[in-house]
Amino acid sequence: MKIAVFGTGNVGDTIGSKLIELGHAVMMGSRTADNEKSIAFVAKHNGIAHSGTYADAAAFGEIIFNCTAGVGSIEALKMAGEQYLNGKVIIDLANSLDFSKGMPPTLTIANTTSLGEEIQKAFPQTKVVKALNTTWCGLMVNPAMINGGDHNTFICGNDEEAKEKVKDFLKAFGWLGKNILDLGDITKARGPEMYLPLWLSIYGATQNGAFNIKIVS
Amino acid sequence: MKIAVFGTGNVGDTIGSKLIELGHAVMMGSRTADNEKSIAFVAKHNGIAHSGTYADAAAFGEIIFNCTAGVGSIEALKMAGEQYLNGKVIIDLANSLDFSKGMPPTLTIANTTSLGEEIQKAFPQTKVVKALNTTWCGLMVNPAMINGGDHNTFICGNDEEAKEKVKDFLKAFGWLGKNILDLGDITKARGPEMYLPLWLSIYGATQNGAFNIKIVS
Repeated sequence: MKIAVFGTGNVGDTIGSKLIELGHAVMMGSRTADNEKSIAFVAKHNGIAHSGTYADAAAFGEIIFNCTAGVGSIEALKMAGEQYLNGKVIIDLANSLDFSKGMPPTLTIANTTSLGEEIQKAFPQTKVVKALNTTWCGLMVNPAMINGGDHNTFICGNDEEAKEKVKDFLKAFGWLGKNILDLGDITKARGPEMYLPLWLSIYGATQNGAFNIKIVS
Repeated sequence: MKIAVFGTGNVGDTIGSKLIELGHAVMMGSRTADNEKSIAFVAKHNGIAHSGTYADAAAFGEIIFNCTAGVGSIEALKMAGEQYLNGKVIIDLANSLDFSKGMPPTLTIANTTSLGEEIQKAFPQTKVVKALNTTWCGLMVNPAMINGGDHNTFICGNDEEAKEKVKDFLKAFGWLGKNILDLGDITKARGPEMYLPLWLSIYGATQNGAFNIKIVS
């Protein structure tokens, strides 16, 4: 499949590399076509990966992974252009963490809404699915790295078919079907997004980012 | 030990009953001395439990469990009176969930601060420890009910000695020492408190409130 990966940070690089490993054609999108990191990404995956502006990537991709920093996600998607996004699934991995006022970061969008919801509102003709924002990117594409892969990840969104597509990607990344919990519609993105302060505190207390939570009952 | 339990809801009743089972003397505090629920609590624990106003309970208790609804916690503590609280440990179990605008509830205090922090600020001469707010009350006092008791609970607060006391209570409730994660100072209360929307979404998706999370790495 032709896939757009928005964002040139660790998350975009990790997701893009995994998608290529799985045989997909990937274009990494960023603000400018000559972004150093996306050029390095293309060089690393010589001849298979592509890079371009957000608009180039959105036009290229049948599906979009939003791996931008959450504080800039809506602007990035606006730069891509609604005409290239409409009708498509946007898998939103972002967290709207604001580190500008020091530690701990706060969320720029929280409590009465969420980044996932705001993206869905801003682009009503897309199908937004919140996913994978609750773990370090290494675990996103390699859950088997810890606890035999037995721990949970969350999805939510308004479109059932879109969520099924995302589940298929997650399974291809190594997530066990029983551990992918569908929380419901896109308003449920508040849960996984507002979990971030706890994630950061656990990371701080344990000094290990390669952890996740497993629901036990 | 003489212990004040603030709040007459399920959490107060559950915590108070467990403390009595453990041999403590408990006074349940509420707005009025003739609160029906606290009178029923005393009747249930005939001759061992006590009830009174928040001020009565605070004067009685060497330590205070705040089991009030989070939206009213600071007011309840103000009604108790600083003179009866100063120097004492306040174990804050509350969540500032506002259900008044329908589902999902929002938090009245979040993101840039937390209820735990606000209680500590309002009563600077107390020692606030956030604890137990991340599970259904049945599990708070009976973690062995699920997964052999192997799942996590969080504490945080500014006073190390106070946190040690709280750990001792948690162990007496059945929590394994290795599963009580100290997140740090009271600002870390944002994590466990902002986890509530995810807790509610997991509960909604699974229709089972007797669950918890286990950190795996």
